[in-house]
Amino acid sequence: MKRIKAHGQSARERGKSVGHGVSSLTLFRASLYVRHLADLEAEGRETISSRELAGKFSISAALVRKDLGLFGAFGKAGVGYYVKGLREALLQKLGLKRTWNVAIVGAGRLGIALSRHKGLAESAFRVAAIVDKYPEATAAKRDSGLEVFHVDDLPRLVNERCIELGIIAVPASSAQDAADTIAQAGIKAILNFAPTHIDVPQGIFVHNVDFTIYLENLAYYANQAYYRDGHPCDLGDKDWLGHQE
Amino acid sequence: MKRIKAHGQSARERGKSVGHGVSSLTLFRASLYVRHLADLEAEGRETISSRELAGKFSISAALVRKDLGLFGAFGKAGVGYYVKGLREALLQKLGLKRTWNVAIVGAGRLGIALSRHKGLAESAFRVAAIVDKYPEATAAKRDSGLEVFHVDDLPRLVNERCIELGIIAVPASSAQDAADTIAQAGIKAILNFAPTHIDVPQGIFVHNVDFTIYLENLAYYANQAYYRDGHPCDLGDKDWLGHQE
Repeated sequence: MKRIKAHGQSARERGKSVGHGVSSLTLFRASLYVRHLADLEAEGRETISSRELAGKFSISAALVRKDLGLFGAFGKAGVGYYVKGLREALLQKLGLKRTWNVAIVGAGRLGIALSRHKGLAESAFRVAAIVDKYPEATAAKRDSGLEVFHVDDLPRLVNERCIELGIIAVPASSAQDAADTIAQAGIKAILNFAPTHIDVPQGIFVHNVDFTIYLENLAYYANQAYYRDGHPCDLGDKDWLGHQE
Repeated sequence: MKRIKAHGQSARERGKSVGHGVSSLTLFRASLYVRHLADLEAEGRETISSRELAGKFSISAALVRKDLGLFGAFGKAGVGYYVKGLREALLQKLGLKRTWNVAIVGAGRLGIALSRHKGLAESAFRVAAIVDKYPEATAAKRDSGLEVFHVDDLPRLVNERCIELGIIAVPASSAQDAADTIAQAGIKAILNFAPTHIDVPQGIFVHNVDFTIYLENLAYYANQAYYRDGHPCDLGDKDWLGHQE
């Protein structure tokens, strides 16, 4: 089987253009537009201009129009976009007018935390199975009685439960094994929470989650706030948690 | 104390411009540039053009130049940018040439998974304390002997350990309490993993993490792959995990 290299960090994957000229950064903005449109709809707003939408995210109106055009949505001169119609069109094109079944590989703390996350419960995504190499020994088994399957059951589960997305929630050292298992089970799209590069067969999409990007964003604003207001002290290199690892 | 509304989902926060004209989307791209520049540096590359950098992320060269200009980095005609110098300049401007101490509020599965995530260990960020309302009852205490402090100790820990960033890793129902605690302890920037809106005093920055954006991105590419290759079956509304919640 031919293998292509998945470019490690979410950072790199996110920006990758895959087919139809729609890049990951465009999709990311589309997800932001959809959320904002839902807010506007809830407020009773009927139309919005590309300029206003752009202002919300501090980007240019031209970029908004280009993004929306890629999804086949074009504004009307003097009116802009119809909020409800635009949201519906984006959801349709993004493939979010249906339920997606997700498998989580790894029933440790992260896997279980993800499976129980209320944000997921309210979305188009449903956790249809959790598998682990050691299902009997997992946090899930110990703490909650949640059904955790053996990782070898994944192909059967994928077939029976029509699972189309996979989440890797194992440590970095097991991430490649998890990716191989997911790919062999026929899943074509993987969300990787392990902080490591994984290789996947051609035709499979990998998106790597990189928590530190959020923290970097935070640090920038914090820097400004502490520069303005002062901050408390200066630290050495002490490891305050005393991790034994 | 005057309170302003933090616009719920990461979605909305991310696009928000806060001071100096640098929006969250720009910062997000800056983090992507930094990671790609590190790869290029590792490969021994000395210079890169805005066009090549733009191609990597499927954006326009003009946008790359504008982004980098906001951080005071300007390319040289016929040369482009010096890879090493550009990366250093971005790290400096992003406030990443130092260590940031982070407090995690919530020592449940997610909080502990975050504190142990290897991706964090390799970054500019260090978990300096974990607090919980019920430190004795937490997963951390049960499973690992990790020191978990009472949430009331947070102001003292922030002061003694010079903590400048806070992570909310509690359920949605406790998120506002956690945010209040963090704000009262003097922390000015919060990463919120709870899927809910939180209110914070003016001058505090909140970034909300929204896992579903990743999954939406994944779904788009999966849609294309399954449309091309076919997918296995069609499901009803059965909840396969049998969650008791």
